[in-house]
Amino acid sequence: MKQRNIKVVVEYEGTDYGGWQRQKNAMTVQQVLEEAIERIVQHKVTVLGASRTDAGVHALGQTANFHTSSAIPARRLLTAINSQLPADVVVRSLSDVEDSFHAQFHARSKTYRYTILNHRIRTALNRRCCHFVGPRLDVSAMRRAAKFLIGRHDFKAFESDADPQSNSVRTVTRASLKKTERCLVFTIEGDGFLYNMVRAIVGTLIEVGRGKVTPDGFRDILESRERTFAGPTAPAKGLCLVKVKY
Amino acid sequence: MKQRNIKVVVEYEGTDYGGWQRQKNAMTVQQVLEEAIERIVQHKVTVLGASRTDAGVHALGQTANFHTSSAIPARRLLTAINSQLPADVVVRSLSDVEDSFHAQFHARSKTYRYTILNHRIRTALNRRCCHFVGPRLDVSAMRRAAKFLIGRHDFKAFESDADPQSNSVRTVTRASLKKTERCLVFTIEGDGFLYNMVRAIVGTLIEVGRGKVTPDGFRDILESRERTFAGPTAPAKGLCLVKVKY
Repeated sequence: MKQRNIKVVVEYEGTDYGGWQRQKNAMTVQQVLEEAIERIVQHKVTVLGASRTDAGVHALGQTANFHTSSAIPARRLLTAINSQLPADVVVRSLSDVEDSFHAQFHARSKTYRYTILNHRIRTALNRRCCHFVGPRLDVSAMRRAAKFLIGRHDFKAFESDADPQSNSVRTVTRASLKKTERCLVFTIEGDGFLYNMVRAIVGTLIEVGRGKVTPDGFRDILESRERTFAGPTAPAKGLCLVKVKY
Repeated sequence: MKQRNIKVVVEYEGTDYGGWQRQKNAMTVQQVLEEAIERIVQHKVTVLGASRTDAGVHALGQTANFHTSSAIPARRLLTAINSQLPADVVVRSLSDVEDSFHAQFHARSKTYRYTILNHRIRTALNRRCCHFVGPRLDVSAMRRAAKFLIGRHDFKAFESDADPQSNSVRTVTRASLKKTERCLVFTIEGDGFLYNMVRAIVGTLIEVGRGKVTPDGFRDILESRERTFAGPTAPAKGLCLVKVKY
């Protein structure tokens, strides 16, 4: 039987999962996806994701691939897999790709969005997908700080100790902050992200917004390559993997 | 002690509630709100809502009032009540109003929003607040039909039999349909709504979008004053009470 390589774009609410990657002690998105696909294609599969999103992190456009010998046409396969998935995970698109395609290694850029509810009052309706910060944040200071992220930098200062990479140089092509009625939405695009990097950046930007760190101080933190100078890691639930480009 | 009349604007996710109004066999928003307030003001209260939203219906701007002898200033009262509410209910604002104010009787208009996810694929992230309709709907036909709602009409055709009103004439001042990337958002404002009226209207508009009913046929249904001619009642989870004006 012909082997196919299938690319999927996956949306999920991470609230009830121990993150993307399979693990022993928690249900993960990778596991529910693999189990759903296996019930349809009738053989074991490994679904490789572009990003190992953490426990509680959401995705609109996680991208992954898996190999199968199934002959089910792409469109029917998509519908069949979705019929096996729980309500908080859904495959948004599915296509046959060339055999060499690798969702993780071939990713050219990833875009993450972090939503801060910056209002005196918390929210009931969107509570699972934003981080509530009561005191009014100084958005223009945060924007000035965020600009220092753009370009090729060593982001060691924003890397969690839990999984350090030998090379912590990454290129950020976009770091913007949009203000809506009640929220601040931070969007960052780059060729790759270190462990907890976006959440450490957001935690530090919130310190800028609170006036505890100046925009220039933010640049100094970035240049220090020293995690202890940066702010706390912002909570997972505000983070969403929006898009992976190839 | 001086009696105060307090107006509150309430946001809630209706998913886990048997609607707004207190009842024996289900937890309701009115009950959790009354219990939260009672823990703060230390006496029994009755919270009167502008709209008795159904089980599963959400609100961004439900408005209600209650009387209290508490001397706690408004701003502190708001914070204290919110500290006692579950994550899916929150008071967005609280103010002292004149003694005669009645949230239900004095409402001049209510605005509801109904969100239809009109896409081939369902959603994971917003699944609790939209109604999924897979087949592509004809938005321009739906818009032409919706225009017939504007004005003073007898809306008997869109009233549920469960709680018929002797007078089913209401005035609708806005009925618009906005298209976003994946959703159709129907917004309707009027001086009052019959039981299940918005959901019956949306259920019928979806039939228009599917080509089962023409825009003129929609007008005929409205004019018939006959519920059996209208479409099904759309699911509660797509509906949200956005605003009550006084």
